[in-house]
Formats: sequence, C-alpha cells, structure tokens
Amino acid sequence: MSNTRELYPIVFADIALFSVLDDRLHVLLVRRSEDPLAGKWALPGGILKPEVDKDLLGTAQRVMRGKLSVDVPFLEEVCTASGPHRDERGWSISVLYLALFPMDQVNAAVGNKIDALKWVDPFAANAPLAFDHSELLNKAITRLRTKVERHALPLHMLPQKFTLSQLQRTCEIVLGRDLDKSVFRRRLKDLHGQELVEVTGEMVRGLQRPAQLWRAANGFQFIG
Amino acid sequence: MSNTRELYPIVFADIALFSVLDDRLHVLLVRRSEDPLAGKWALPGGILKPEVDKDLLGTAQRVMRGKLSVDVPFLEEVCTASGPHRDERGWSISVLYLALFPMDQVNAAVGNKIDALKWVDPFAANAPLAFDHSELLNKAITRLRTKVERHALPLHMLPQKFTLSQLQRTCEIVLGRDLDKSVFRRRLKDLHGQELVEVTGEMVRGLQRPAQLWRAANGFQFIG
Repeated sequence: MSNTRELYPIVFADIALFSVLDDRLHVLLVRRSEDPLAGKWALPGGILKPEVDKDLLGTAQRVMRGKLSVDVPFLEEVCTASGPHRDERGWSISVLYLALFPMDQVNAAVGNKIDALKWVDPFAANAPLAFDHSELLNKAITRLRTKVERHALPLHMLPQKFTLSQLQRTCEIVLGRDLDKSVFRRRLKDLHGQELVEVTGEMVRGLQRPAQLWRAANGFQFIG
Repeated sequence: MSNTRELYPIVFADIALFSVLDDRLHVLLVRRSEDPLAGKWALPGGILKPEVDKDLLGTAQRVMRGKLSVDVPFLEEVCTASGPHRDERGWSISVLYLALFPMDQVNAAVGNKIDALKWVDPFAANAPLAFDHSELLNKAITRLRTKVERHALPLHMLPQKFTLSQLQRTCEIVLGRDLDKSVFRRRLKDLHGQELVEVTGEMVRGLQRPAQLWRAANGFQFIG
C-alpha cells in the first residue's frame, strides 16, 4: 500500500464558504479533529471518494452537506493546488471551491457543531490555517471580489427577500469599499440588459422610511 | 491492483494550445497512438506522475515539452473535468490548461511528428474529439475570449516583435469580430495605466507604409 500512495495522488475538495456576519465578510473554518495537524483550523474539505462521488463538485457538495447538514446554494471551482509536500499523507491535489451562504442562515448552519466550526473575518489577524489553506483562502477572496467587481451580484449571500440597500451593502462588504448608488443600480441588469432582481411587492419598515423587498429574478445565476 | 483503480482517481493534465495560422485561430490536436480510443484526435495531455512532477502545472509543462520539444510560454489552469465514466480506465480527473504559442513558431513546433500532431481551426467542422475533449476545448476558447474581451493582450501568440495592426488583428481573430482602432489602442495599458507594450525602435516595410515594431513591455504578464 505504501507504493500505491506514491503512484496515485490524494484528491481533496476544499471549500471557502463566505457569508456576512456583523456587517463584515466571514468565512467558515473547521477545526481538524485528526492528524495531520489535529487541532488546527482549516477550510472545510474532504477526500474524493470515487465509489460515491459522481464528480469533484459532488465531492464538494457531499462534504458541505456533511459538515453543515444543509445544501450550499452556490459552489464554483476556483483552482487547484498540488504537489508532494503540501500534505504529509503524500502527493496531493486540492480542488478549491468558492461557496456563498445566506447571511440569515449563518447561525443555523453551525448548529450544535459549534466547537468544531467557526465563522471568522478573514481580514482580522488569525493564525495561519492548516496546510496551504491560508493561500487558498486568499485565492477564493480574490475570485469573489473579481466577480463582484465585474458586476456579479452575490445574491446567494442574502436572505431570499432583501432591500436594494442591503444588496448594495453586501457588495460593499465584499469589495471592501463604498459604491456609488447610481453606479450600483446600473449593475442590477446583466450583460444582455436582463433584470437580475425583481420586486416582491412586499415592503419592510425599519428605522428609516419603508423600503421595497426584492428577490433574485427567475433563473438567476451568479454572473461572473 | 484493480481495487486500487477504484480507490484512487487517474489524474491528467490536458492542454488547449492556441496559435494563429492563415489568419485564423488554431488549436493543436494529437492523434492517440494507444487505446483507449486509439486513432482518435484529442487535446494533448498526459498522466500526472507524482514521482517526477512538482505540481500539476509541472505535469502540463512536461507533457508539452514531450509532445513539442519546446517550452510553451504561457499555461493557465482553466478548470477540471471529473467522473467515473469519462475515461474507461476508471474514475478520472482532467485539469485543463489554456496555453498560447507564437504564430511564427507554429510549424517548428510540429516538426517531424507531423503525422501525430495537427493544428486545426476549432470552428471548422471537425469530428468530435476523444473523451470529453470537445467540451474542454470549448471551455478553453471561452476562457481565452473572456480574457481578451476583458482587455488582456494575447501577446504570447505573436512573434517577439510585431506591429500594432498585427496585435489588433490577433485580438480580432480570437474574438471573432472587428475592433475599433481607437478603442483597441486604449487597451495597450493595464488597469494601473502601465504600458503593456513598448516600441523596439525598429520599423517594418510591407505592402503598406512602414510600421513600427513593438514588443511586450518588461515584465509583461498575460493580464486577465
């Protein structure tokens, strides 16, 4: 069996799952319960199981379902990391996925596994993650920001119904800078001029004047 | 050993190598000499060798060096394809790379392996490629077009010295549409206003009036 390890790579799907908490971008981390690097925090991930996974996206979905007991509404492949030394178990490949999670379900997602899972602000000072996961996390943030910079709407991070201010604020949180309101309103259409969001007809009353509630338009895809 | 095949995926690096030939986009294909699918045309690729490759990019570079006996100046990971049925040898992963090759070296690249390699126009009617390579080829074309659409310059497809008309024409060939000359000239700077190309001081005389020869500016990266 030791020869086998040298001939075949170990393949993982690792997931950078983002949401918004306390008006800041957060990413989900998991504390490793087993060696290598038991006790260290890492991106959630798991080994490809050829006997059960229909493809690598299936691996990522299975891993997220197992960790969170919920389906993650958006998963997109970012890149691979590979080599003989990134994991002491042998030559390994990680396929990194970018995932988004609705901000109103963040607490439900962690549930009773609170000891082994935590949402953290990736820009706050944290100890380096296990393996090369700090680097993978940076790549996922870059991909997310590039998508939103190029006018994608991170709707999968929002509740099902949201105000346009909330949507703009979420883009600002991702980008780390303020957006002009009129420039922002223009990005509510896709490249073909199709509306990406639609009014629900419902209103919300808060501290300010009542605002319309919107939702993703029928057939919305995270445009990138 | 048959159990091993079920537990570990086979991992390939497959490469869509583009250049320009006869004023059209071309991609390099290789005729498979062995089963499965011996005799069929495919994207050039090879199996990851954990004992020699330092990472998956290393696999792709080794494969291209082996097929072409030259180094390919630009290789970028596009995506993975994976699953139990895409290759009869077992559960497999292909990591797809986009690569560009200088148009003035296209003939040298094929060399004496002309029977097993050919450059084809991917938009001309061709028989489907082996495995899911037709689909991979489409993904690579989409990535290349998106990059050039977003103002990347496909300088790695050009000779070392080129005219600006030649550069514009190469972008047009990739995009499949004409570009406005003044709009095009604006993309010769990167996002930070840095010049991506610089004059060599040399001129070329052709059928038209003499034109300046340009080259990639120092430190040029394919911006995407």
